[in-house]
Amino acid sequence: MGELPTEPYKGVRDFYPADWAQLSAVFDRLRTTLAAWGYEEYAASPLERAELYESKGSEEIIREQSYTFEDRGGRRVTLRPEMTPTLARMVAAKRRLLSFPLRWFSIGNRFRYERPQKGRMREFFQADIDLVGLAEGEADLEILTLAAALLKAFGATEKDFVIRLNSRALLNEACREAGLKSEAARSYLRLLDKKAKIPASEFREAQQALTNNDPLRYLDENAMASTLTALKKRGVGNAVFDPSLTRGFDYYTGLVFEIYDTSPQNPRSLFGGGRYDNLIGLFSGEGGAPIPAVGFAVGDVTLMDFLTARDLLPKARTAPDLYLGTVGAGSQEAAIETGEVLRTRGLKVFINLTEKSLGDQVKDAVKRGVPYFAAIGEEEKHSQTLRVKRLASSEERPMALADVAPYILNA
Amino acid sequence: MGELPTEPYKGVRDFYPADWAQLSAVFDRLRTTLAAWGYEEYAASPLERAELYESKGSEEIIREQSYTFEDRGGRRVTLRPEMTPTLARMVAAKRRLLSFPLRWFSIGNRFRYERPQKGRMREFFQADIDLVGLAEGEADLEILTLAAALLKAFGATEKDFVIRLNSRALLNEACREAGLKSEAARSYLRLLDKKAKIPASEFREAQQALTNNDPLRYLDENAMASTLTALKKRGVGNAVFDPSLTRGFDYYTGLVFEIYDTSPQNPRSLFGGGRYDNLIGLFSGEGGAPIPAVGFAVGDVTLMDFLTARDLLPKARTAPDLYLGTVGAGSQEAAIETGEVLRTRGLKVFINLTEKSLGDQVKDAVKRGVPYFAAIGEEEKHSQTLRVKRLASSEERPMALADVAPYILNA
Repeated sequence: MGELPTEPYKGVRDFYPADWAQLSAVFDRLRTTLAAWGYEEYAASPLERAELYESKGSEEIIREQSYTFEDRGGRRVTLRPEMTPTLARMVAAKRRLLSFPLRWFSIGNRFRYERPQKGRMREFFQADIDLVGLAEGEADLEILTLAAALLKAFGATEKDFVIRLNSRALLNEACREAGLKSEAARSYLRLLDKKAKIPASEFREAQQALTNNDPLRYLDENAMASTLTALKKRGVGNAVFDPSLTRGFDYYTGLVFEIYDTSPQNPRSLFGGGRYDNLIGLFSGEGGAPIPAVGFAVGDVTLMDFLTARDLLPKARTAPDLYLGTVGAGSQEAAIETGEVLRTRGLKVFINLTEKSLGDQVKDAVKRGVPYFAAIGEEEKHSQTLRVKRLASSEERPMALADVAPYILNA
Repeated sequence: MGELPTEPYKGVRDFYPADWAQLSAVFDRLRTTLAAWGYEEYAASPLERAELYESKGSEEIIREQSYTFEDRGGRRVTLRPEMTPTLARMVAAKRRLLSFPLRWFSIGNRFRYERPQKGRMREFFQADIDLVGLAEGEADLEILTLAAALLKAFGATEKDFVIRLNSRALLNEACREAGLKSEAARSYLRLLDKKAKIPASEFREAQQALTNNDPLRYLDENAMASTLTALKKRGVGNAVFDPSLTRGFDYYTGLVFEIYDTSPQNPRSLFGGGRYDNLIGLFSGEGGAPIPAVGFAVGDVTLMDFLTARDLLPKARTAPDLYLGTVGAGSQEAAIETGEVLRTRGLKVFINLTEKSLGDQVKDAVKRGVPYFAAIGEEEKHSQTLRVKRLASSEERPMALADVAPYILNA
């Protein structure tokens, strides 16, 4: 054996077929639900110009967590740590050609140089869902209802998760009333974002360094009551106002929200998002008016944890439908021909190309998770029939070749 | 408007919904065909340890074309330029747990720092298809037949493409007979790989620098006749022996092949691959015997060119099925409720949230490519009926809400 280590790069994952099938089944459930809501998928390269993240956004993520390097031509490149700046760039580029509002989503990988730990990887997947071109109101309600609908599409119920809401506009107003100027207000919001993760004394001290006031005192407890009422009317009863919710990114301008798992074992944020009415306007491009937008992101690691803990993972099978066994090398050709016929009828067929005994082929089929087995020997070659064995029950049925695909596909 | 440029990073593409739907439809056709042949999808991160590409493989790609950088912890990282080393690493890592042979594929992005030009991007997609754990013979034939089947699945016929075959084993033997030692033989094969791209005089001079002999003179013209005969028997009649075909990578050990577009307008390699029996053995890992393998890759850019030129692109629609129009803000709530009902019956529903006039909403639906339109007004709210308009023909039908989804889905 050679010398090369077989581990992947630190903090990223290899997806063997069963793992990839499971993750793909989760993505497909998201895709189906999003398509039903009229959302269309877009994509972009993970390579972005570094300047995209340097103008506005969460400086912390860029300074400490981005993968940024120089290419061979001296261009500074960043592996996208999040999708929203890419979306804003793409929308700005075609603002005169696109039909607004846009209902768009994208599922892909994001990169952050973090210490790998439970729920945090250096490469992870996110679904980003955005409604672009509409001011707050109905658009915010749709995004919140859709976020809940995505979890419900897996069978989750309202007791499994809670939607926490706040408003950057209200927070900014509260900061102003507490006497915080714009830079201090920004620092305060960043501090508030960390509140749950740091000791209470540390939070208090840092707050006192900024103001003797408690800005949250100026936040109207009923400010989001009408949003909560409207959500209830749409069947979303598990949303609450959370005065200390801020979200990490500087670009939010209105609604901010996170969906939390209610399980004490996994008290994590599953989805997070908000309104960012000024981000698209940072890009050049003719054609006038600012483009308001609201959206959120769903991370794969925490979502998989949530679904796994609740036994809500969609079923995924990657194995073929039928294992065509062979009896000696002489029947391989017949197996290949038979496989060709069955494929055209919609079956996924695995053909044995090894010298394994028939018994070992059946074991191999079971190990691979293939549900049906049929051997091709002299008899089958001549009669154009197969004895199809259902491996779960060992029930075996002889049938004409033409009946095999309907039998298995309709089982 | 702001200052940030809207272009993507040089040499990569933005995929707006219609473009992404088209590319996804092509990938889905590949996936369906590969699944029918019993192949299972796997995936891995584009971030790989740089050393993976430094042991063996095409040095040129690594030295001149890779994206390699140091991460914040001083680890050297490469954005994978190709998938085979990753596959070999993953197989070696689980060699004791996996059931061989493996029929595996992966569809994802690859990165090469090249000068962007027609058919070449810095980020492109590839489908990599591999049959791992079987020696040459049936396995090589399956891979070649499958490669042809993938193009036929789009409706291509044998006159649209040609499969060019050669064998590294035969080429190595011919080099030996011509008196070339191993390093000189490698240089010769690399030169041969460039033969079609450089002037004949340059090739001749470079060959003379290595040997006064022509190694190809020692290549038996009939050496691959039995392979070609076996392929014909399987319905693959468009394969030819190409003595000067070598492929760029050093890791090939037996069969090498490329599929070329036969169109004089696009004389490009669509697929390329071969047998690499020693690559997996370069990795550490217990459990003994070498693992032979054969496979190939399909690039998205040249494949899309091939399909587009022949009008073989699969149909792709990203737009929703039905545009629910509203008559004033009062009917928005009813539209949202109606949309919810229709979604549960499988329809993709777009709901108007703007103040556009009904006429402008119809125009909007047409522009978005939504095939059906229905407005919700007072009458519809009370009667639970909709007047569903087929926008292509302007035909309008009144129907009960329960009939809308079947009407549109079965159209």
